[in-house]
Amino acid sequence: MATLSVFLDVPLATAIDFPLDVYREDPSPQKVCLGHAGCHTDSADEIWIPPVVQQILLQIPQDPTLDHEYIKELGIVEFTKTAMELVIGKNNQALLDNRAGGVHTIGGTGAVWIGAEFLHRWYRPNHLTPATVYIAVPQLDTLGCIFQVAGFTDIRSYHYWDPIKLSVDIEMFMAELQNAPEGSIVFLHAPEETGLMSSEWKRIASLMKKRQLFPFFDIAAQGLASGNLDRDAWALRLFVDQGFELLCAQSFSKNFGLYDERVGNLIVVTTDNQTLIRIHSQIARLIAMTWFGPTSLGARVITMVLTSPARLYEWKQSLQSLVKRIMLIREKLKEKLRILGTPGSWEHLTTQSGVYSFIGLNSSQVEFLEKHKHIYFLANGQINICSINSRNLDYIAQSIHESVLVTTHQNPSCLYIKADKEPDESSVDLSDSS
Amino acid sequence: MATLSVFLDVPLATAIDFPLDVYREDPSPQKVCLGHAGCHTDSADEIWIPPVVQQILLQIPQDPTLDHEYIKELGIVEFTKTAMELVIGKNNQALLDNRAGGVHTIGGTGAVWIGAEFLHRWYRPNHLTPATVYIAVPQLDTLGCIFQVAGFTDIRSYHYWDPIKLSVDIEMFMAELQNAPEGSIVFLHAPEETGLMSSEWKRIASLMKKRQLFPFFDIAAQGLASGNLDRDAWALRLFVDQGFELLCAQSFSKNFGLYDERVGNLIVVTTDNQTLIRIHSQIARLIAMTWFGPTSLGARVITMVLTSPARLYEWKQSLQSLVKRIMLIREKLKEKLRILGTPGSWEHLTTQSGVYSFIGLNSSQVEFLEKHKHIYFLANGQINICSINSRNLDYIAQSIHESVLVTTHQNPSCLYIKADKEPDESSVDLSDSS
Repeated sequence: MATLSVFLDVPLATAIDFPLDVYREDPSPQKVCLGHAGCHTDSADEIWIPPVVQQILLQIPQDPTLDHEYIKELGIVEFTKTAMELVIGKNNQALLDNRAGGVHTIGGTGAVWIGAEFLHRWYRPNHLTPATVYIAVPQLDTLGCIFQVAGFTDIRSYHYWDPIKLSVDIEMFMAELQNAPEGSIVFLHAPEETGLMSSEWKRIASLMKKRQLFPFFDIAAQGLASGNLDRDAWALRLFVDQGFELLCAQSFSKNFGLYDERVGNLIVVTTDNQTLIRIHSQIARLIAMTWFGPTSLGARVITMVLTSPARLYEWKQSLQSLVKRIMLIREKLKEKLRILGTPGSWEHLTTQSGVYSFIGLNSSQVEFLEKHKHIYFLANGQINICSINSRNLDYIAQSIHESVLVTTHQNPSCLYIKADKEPDESSVDLSDSS
Repeated sequence: MATLSVFLDVPLATAIDFPLDVYREDPSPQKVCLGHAGCHTDSADEIWIPPVVQQILLQIPQDPTLDHEYIKELGIVEFTKTAMELVIGKNNQALLDNRAGGVHTIGGTGAVWIGAEFLHRWYRPNHLTPATVYIAVPQLDTLGCIFQVAGFTDIRSYHYWDPIKLSVDIEMFMAELQNAPEGSIVFLHAPEETGLMSSEWKRIASLMKKRQLFPFFDIAAQGLASGNLDRDAWALRLFVDQGFELLCAQSFSKNFGLYDERVGNLIVVTTDNQTLIRIHSQIARLIAMTWFGPTSLGARVITMVLTSPARLYEWKQSLQSLVKRIMLIREKLKEKLRILGTPGSWEHLTTQSGVYSFIGLNSSQVEFLEKHKHIYFLANGQINICSINSRNLDYIAQSIHESVLVTTHQNPSCLYIKADKEPDESSVDLSDSS
C-alpha cells in the first residue's frame, strides 16, 4: 500500500514482562517459572481451583432460571453485598449505616481503574490539581500506570520493606507518610501480605488520619496470607472502624481460582448513605462508558459459595489447605538452603506469609538464575511460592545456592529496589504510551 | 457521622433511562416493554439464545483441558481471528496482508471505549487538538459520552434518517460529511440496520476518502438485519477494500444471545503489518490498565461455533429463523394498523429491517403510549421489534392506533429528533459527570 498511515507516529509500547512467556519459549527441560500470576497445584502446571468452585461451574449452565441478560452497570447486587460483607464484616457499622457499598467490576484491575478514574474526576482535596498518589515500590510500574492513565500526574513511590534486613521497615513508611502532601491518596496493595503487624497498622491509620491522607486498599487474595479470611481483612476493617472514607478494590481471581472470569468489587466507604448514592451514580456512568456492565459467571459462582454455609465451609477448608502447602514450601526451601550451607539468613521465607515473597536475592543473582538456571521471575523481583512444587524444589534450592556463591561479592540489593527512585524523581515514566 | 465527606461536591448523575426498569415497576397487567436491549423469544419474556450456543454452554465446563488462567491483554487469538474473518471476510486483502487484526474486548462497548481512548491518544490529523467526532443522532447520548469521557471535546451529531418522510436521507448525510473538518472521525453505528443501499455507501465512502474522514464502524448485530452475515457486513468490507484505515467495534451480545458475557472485538485495519503491531502494543497497554485481560467463556463459545462447519450452519439457521420472525412481526403490525385504518403510512415498518426500528411516532404519541397504555420505549425512540410477540401484538397495534388518533394535531416529529441540535450546539452535554 502506497498510502501513508495516519498512525505513523504511534511508537511501539514496551510489552509487559510476563516471565511465563519467556519460560514457555525456553526449550530447557530444567526450566522453572517462579512468576505465575496465579496459584498452581503441587501436582502439575495447573491453576489451583477450589473443588467447590469446580462443582458450581458444572451446575450453573444447567440452571434453567438463569438467563444471559445484560447486568446493570453496578452489577449483581447479591454479589456486591456478600463480597463486601466478606471483607469488611457482616456487622460492620458502615454497612449497617448504609454508607458502604460495592460495585461489581471487571476484575481487581477494573476496580482499581474505576476507582482511579472516579478519584481523578471527583477527589480534589486541594481544590486545584488532582491529588498526589503514593504507591509501594513493587506495584509502582503496574498500578502506578493505572493512576497515570486515569490522569494523575504526581505519582510517588513509598517503601515499607527493607531489602537489606529483609523485613518490614515501619519507620521508613511512617516518615514517607509524614512528608506526603495533605490529602494524598495512599494506595495500600495487599495489606494482608505486607507483614505489617496490627500495632503498626494502628500507627499508620493514626498518622493518615492526622495528615488527612485518603486510603485506597487493594485486597488481592483474602484468605491466602494467613488462611483466615477475617485476619487477612484486619487492616481494612481498622480503617473502616476509625471512620475513614476510603475505596477498596477486591479481587477474587486468586482465592477462587477464576482468573479469566475477571471478577472484582470496588467498595466505597463514605460518611453517609446520600453521599454513597451520589458516588455510585457517577461510577455507574463511568462503567456505562467503559464496559457497559460486568460479566456474570464468576460473580454467580462466588455468590453461590458465599451465601451457602456448607459451600462456604468447603471453600474455607480449601483455602486453609492451600495456605498450609504454601507454609510447608517456605519451610522446606529454608531447610534445603540451611542444609546446603547457603550464605545469608533465610528466616524471612517463613516469617513472611502469602503467595508472593521477596526471596532476598540481588539483581545479579536473579540474572544468574535466569541465564544459567532457566528460572524465571516476576518483574518486581517477588516469587510466587505456589510455583515451587515437590518436583522442582531441589533444583530451585540448589540453583539459589549456586547463585549466592557465584555473586556474593555484589551488593545485596533486592531486585525490586531497581524500580526505586528518589521521591522527587519517582513519577512513573510512561513517555512512550501517552 | 459528624465528619464532612471529601465527596461533598459529587453531584447525583442522571441514571441511564432503561425502559425495562420502569416496565418492571409498573403493576399493570397490560404493560409492554418495547425497549429490551436484546432479542426475546416469541413465547415468553426470555432472552433468545441460539440452541447451539446453549449446547456449548453445557459442554465447556466439562472440558478438562480448559483452565481459568488469565488471558493476555489482546485476548484469545483464535477468537479475535475468526471473529474478524466473520465480519471482513476470510479472503480479505487486509487480512492476507497482515494489516488487519482484532483485539478481544469486554463487549462492544469495551471495543468502542478502547478505540476512543486509543484515537484520543494517537489520532491527531491536525497535529494540535483531538479530532472532531461525528455520531448519528440516535446514538449521540450513549456513544457520544464514551468519546467525551475518553477526552474528545468536539462531538457533533449527524443525520441519515428523515423523521418526516420516515426514510433514509442520503443527501442530508452527504451534506454533513461535506462540511465536516478534514480528518474528523465518523462513527458508523450498525451500518447493517441503517437501510442505506450499497450505491449510497459507495457515495459515502468516496466522499469520506476525499475529505480524509476516519471511519469507526460499530457492527452491533451482524446477521440480524438481513439474515445474511455477509450482506450485513457489506458496508464495512467496502471501506476495507477501498484501502481505508479504520476501526470497527464488533459485538456478539445479540447474535449469540450472550449479553452478560460481554464479548467484543476491536478490529484495526491499517496500511501495513508494522503499524498494526505498534497500534496493538499501545492498545495492549491501555487494556492492561483498564481490565487487565478479557473474560473467556463467551469468546470460547463463539470460537467453537465459528470454527466448526456444522455448528456454524446451525447458528446461521437460528439467525435466519429469528430474522424471519422479525420480518413477520413487522408485516403483521403494518397489516393490523391498515385494518384499523390508522392514519399515516406504515410502509417503513417493512422497508426497514433488523431488530430496532424507528416506528414513526412523535413524542406526544410516545408519551401517550407510556402514560395511558403502559407501553415503554427506548430513550432514542426506537423500538425493539423482538419485544412484540403473538400475545401483545393486538394490544400494541390498537394502542398505536389510539395514540395517533388522539394526537394527530401534533407535529409529526420523530421522537429521536428531540436529541437533535444545530451543529454548533451539538456537543454532548455531560456537565454533571465530568
